[in-house]
Amino acid sequence: MLDSISALQYELVYNAFSFTVAVMGAATAFLFLNRGQVAFIYRTAISISGLVTFIAMYHYIRIASSWSQSFSMVNGQIASSGIAFNDAYRYVDWLLTVPLLLIELILVMKLSQSETVAKATKLGSLAALMVILGYPGEISPDPGTRWFWWSLSMIPFLIIVYDLFIGLKKSIDSQPEAARGLVSAARYVTVVSWLFYPIVYVLPMVGLTGGSAVAAVQVGYTIADIVAKAGFGILIYMIAVRKSELEPDFVAAIPRGAKPSAV
Amino acid sequence: MLDSISALQYELVYNAFSFTVAVMGAATAFLFLNRGQVAFIYRTAISISGLVTFIAMYHYIRIASSWSQSFSMVNGQIASSGIAFNDAYRYVDWLLTVPLLLIELILVMKLSQSETVAKATKLGSLAALMVILGYPGEISPDPGTRWFWWSLSMIPFLIIVYDLFIGLKKSIDSQPEAARGLVSAARYVTVVSWLFYPIVYVLPMVGLTGGSAVAAVQVGYTIADIVAKAGFGILIYMIAVRKSELEPDFVAAIPRGAKPSAV
Repeated sequence: MLDSISALQYELVYNAFSFTVAVMGAATAFLFLNRGQVAFIYRTAISISGLVTFIAMYHYIRIASSWSQSFSMVNGQIASSGIAFNDAYRYVDWLLTVPLLLIELILVMKLSQSETVAKATKLGSLAALMVILGYPGEISPDPGTRWFWWSLSMIPFLIIVYDLFIGLKKSIDSQPEAARGLVSAARYVTVVSWLFYPIVYVLPMVGLTGGSAVAAVQVGYTIADIVAKAGFGILIYMIAVRKSELEPDFVAAIPRGAKPSAV
Repeated sequence: MLDSISALQYELVYNAFSFTVAVMGAATAFLFLNRGQVAFIYRTAISISGLVTFIAMYHYIRIASSWSQSFSMVNGQIASSGIAFNDAYRYVDWLLTVPLLLIELILVMKLSQSETVAKATKLGSLAALMVILGYPGEISPDPGTRWFWWSLSMIPFLIIVYDLFIGLKKSIDSQPEAARGLVSAARYVTVVSWLFYPIVYVLPMVGLTGGSAVAAVQVGYTIADIVAKAGFGILIYMIAVRKSELEPDFVAAIPRGAKPSAV
């Protein structure tokens, strides 16, 4: 399938990967540097948001390098180099980052300790299961096999989305006024950016072929990763900043009038 | 032995190494960032936990690179490149990290100063001896030689395990209620994850041959390292968070009601 790619498609995908390395690296630096701008209790959520973009940055460096090793370019003509593109990097990344993404959302909600542990365990395990079930289909060229694993993977996917929409809806009503809109937005960003993944997955099964299919899948997953990891991480940070103003340690340490104007 | 490996085994091992780079890097970032989330007295334990995963991240970057240089891939077919895979990275890593792992466990126990120094010296030296005695067998293809060094290495191994189970048992009873379960869990995680190593070591001596033996040893050690270093480090962090709530400096700095819900 890599044989049918055009030089333009090759470059589009490569530049999307390189752009993502820069975005993830910048998001990581921002979140790591600015975790002291939120109250003590929200700092773990910000650390974890930064871990997600840090892990993604690492994998996009590897993905970009594997992509360029998969091709050789001679006189502006692109051809497969015979070295396989390593699809596993994405799944290894998701196996780590998707459970962490859900945990950062749960942590910023500031639920009770037992509720935090219960929700993090449940959603984190379902997310790992979803990623594992998707992989056998992703590496298969056969549409039947792809649909089979896609369907299995959609079961934990739908449970998570349902849980976020219905289960977390109740918790959102108990969020402070100032942060309620942003927490609700984070819920929607999760669901919408997540919907990208199963749609991108089916592109090669619904008529898209050759180089276009490869490029669409790679660019599609890349856009979804930017929104779901870097965009979402910044949203979590903004929620933590708003909610910090209600925390006694934060109010004591940061005098009134000096509250962050950044968000 | 590397000649008999299949492309699938090669990729499984490579992806396990890359996954571990990401896990160790993420654990390091988390522990370095979050050491301020625990009381002053426990921060050295958290720093050392982060050093262990940091050293492991470095070695897994080297191991992954040595692994891919040991093979060449032509048209999806894998063959030995003639460059030897460097087994020494693991032993150099263990020589540094295993004594540090024991020291982080001892530090989080908050024993008396003399007890801390005595235990850290004794267990740290035994751990270094254990790693040094294992290496000559690891690089030998002869089962007799492997068994000889394995047996010698098991002597300090068993003394450490005995000391953790019996010696630290007494100290555990003196741990605060809130942390006792986690400290006990850390003791078990150490012993169970450590048992992985001598078992993986003997796989090529009990009938496993060729590519399967190589893949099983590499993936086995990798899983053991993830549990014993990253998993254990997070457990030490959780213990430190719970115990911090009993430290006066921590209680003074972090008002009640703002205690971390992270763990």
